[in-house]
Amino acid sequence: MNLVDVVVIGSGPAGYTAAIYTSRSNLKTVVFEGYLSGIAGGQLMTTTLVENFPGFSDGVMGQDLMLNMKKQAQRLSVDVLAEDAKSVDLKVHPFIVKGSKTVFQAKTVIIATGASAKRADIPGTSDGEFWQKGVSACAICDGAAPIFRGKEVFVIGGGDSAVEEAIFLTKFAKKVYIVHRREKLRASDIMVKRALSNPKIEVLFNSEVISVLGDKIVTHVVLKTGDSQKEEKREAAGVFFAIGHEPNTAFLNGQLKLNDQGYIIVKAGGTCTSIEGVFAAGDVQDYRYRQAIVAAGSGCMAALDAERWIEEKGIC
Amino acid sequence: MNLVDVVVIGSGPAGYTAAIYTSRSNLKTVVFEGYLSGIAGGQLMTTTLVENFPGFSDGVMGQDLMLNMKKQAQRLSVDVLAEDAKSVDLKVHPFIVKGSKTVFQAKTVIIATGASAKRADIPGTSDGEFWQKGVSACAICDGAAPIFRGKEVFVIGGGDSAVEEAIFLTKFAKKVYIVHRREKLRASDIMVKRALSNPKIEVLFNSEVISVLGDKIVTHVVLKTGDSQKEEKREAAGVFFAIGHEPNTAFLNGQLKLNDQGYIIVKAGGTCTSIEGVFAAGDVQDYRYRQAIVAAGSGCMAALDAERWIEEKGIC
Repeated sequence: MNLVDVVVIGSGPAGYTAAIYTSRSNLKTVVFEGYLSGIAGGQLMTTTLVENFPGFSDGVMGQDLMLNMKKQAQRLSVDVLAEDAKSVDLKVHPFIVKGSKTVFQAKTVIIATGASAKRADIPGTSDGEFWQKGVSACAICDGAAPIFRGKEVFVIGGGDSAVEEAIFLTKFAKKVYIVHRREKLRASDIMVKRALSNPKIEVLFNSEVISVLGDKIVTHVVLKTGDSQKEEKREAAGVFFAIGHEPNTAFLNGQLKLNDQGYIIVKAGGTCTSIEGVFAAGDVQDYRYRQAIVAAGSGCMAALDAERWIEEKGIC
Repeated sequence: MNLVDVVVIGSGPAGYTAAIYTSRSNLKTVVFEGYLSGIAGGQLMTTTLVENFPGFSDGVMGQDLMLNMKKQAQRLSVDVLAEDAKSVDLKVHPFIVKGSKTVFQAKTVIIATGASAKRADIPGTSDGEFWQKGVSACAICDGAAPIFRGKEVFVIGGGDSAVEEAIFLTKFAKKVYIVHRREKLRASDIMVKRALSNPKIEVLFNSEVISVLGDKIVTHVVLKTGDSQKEEKREAAGVFFAIGHEPNTAFLNGQLKLNDQGYIIVKAGGTCTSIEGVFAAGDVQDYRYRQAIVAAGSGCMAALDAERWIEEKGIC
């Protein structure tokens, strides 16, 4: 069994940034890139132009950004494995990480497996036809795109993040509909008030988007609305899922402390988890910001924490 | 007086990332880039090749990275002013930010003025001759450069960070000397033990580097060592300052809570300062990680916090 200094699980901005830092510090570093479960390269692989990752004056394609990070890591001697990390044993030290083909012993483990935006199973979206062609799961990432400006867009959800995304989208769209299955929003009172008092926002209660239609990009949604549950076709430039995220922590099998929603709990302001020598970075521990550049920053923090831990212990 | 949504003070990775995010969210955003005090573009402007900013497979020149960020911000309609922010009034709202020429009222202020590494006034370094040609103030950033591999390098300082930097440099250098003016290190016991027991590290007590010599790059240092204070010339490939950092917070005139060392105190895991609506990002609030990518991540966090604060208040 190979003993390495750092095993990084996950290959989004957090994972690769962590690996770039540890490997450049001469720590033997392996990245489990993922293969079947999750997406190698993380959520940016499913985006198009990324305008807000700093350093690229004209923006950068999400896939190019991630392929660059992978190349950068490999150039700095990171060993990138096209394998899923199937299971970990964090009760022994060195820790054990089992891939589909390879097993490693690791002095430190950095978990950067990200989170997946939940999507409802709606024809035209779940099959991917209009994904990133009007359908999105991140208003902050995609809301400023020209296709939404001055148009009608639909946000699916009823919690705080649905209302936040709707308010955000009013900056660009002509009208924002919040489509919610129930007769009451789950969001906090202040957010509900804000939504209901915003002239650009209309909440469709007891409603559902049942399909998304388009011609290359989204043009319409079909809704079932209100008490009658009558089907209705409406013009739409965008459909934004805001029904939550699922952090990818199942493979941990309960070995790390998670919060109610399954996110890894880290000591605030750092990346220490409930087990010394195990660090978490990126969206798997971040339910607040969920941006690539924040994930990358926390990947660097995890790397420096892991390095210090190997040298000094007792930093967590 | 102009009223804007966001005034960003500082133009390093934190400042520009914050501005990119807020402006892309349709918030009217101004950046005080700095002019006389500090360096427009931040500490990266004084580096050469940056290998560890994720997304650039072959690395990127520090100045290019920062010019890209500036262009990116301007393309997204950020107003970048080549002015210092001379003073702020955070006791009124909208806040007031006075530049050398322009005055703004601001709904939110993001402070990203960074920190400056302290340098001793040593011939060959303070006059800049060998800066980034063997002389550095960041081992993590520069230690892996080929010019230090297998060579003798000198760390100036005696605290925890001097010892940490020395240990880090043993990964690359043949021998690392810690040059300390006093007869005892200020570092914590465990770090002192670690330094003294590392065969690649030698601590030179009661010692001083009095000049740095070279031919294009550093080749020697002249030391005054020990009780005799005899001058001595030694081979050296590198000189690393580790005598602390000075966060750039003087212009705040005590209006925000600072820690003992003058760093802005933020609520852990976020960017809220002691005044609602004022946020801090980057090295001006980070004494632990001090890396460009971490600063950029926190700039994004400050932008999202500022946005939420404008919409909802009470998030801090």
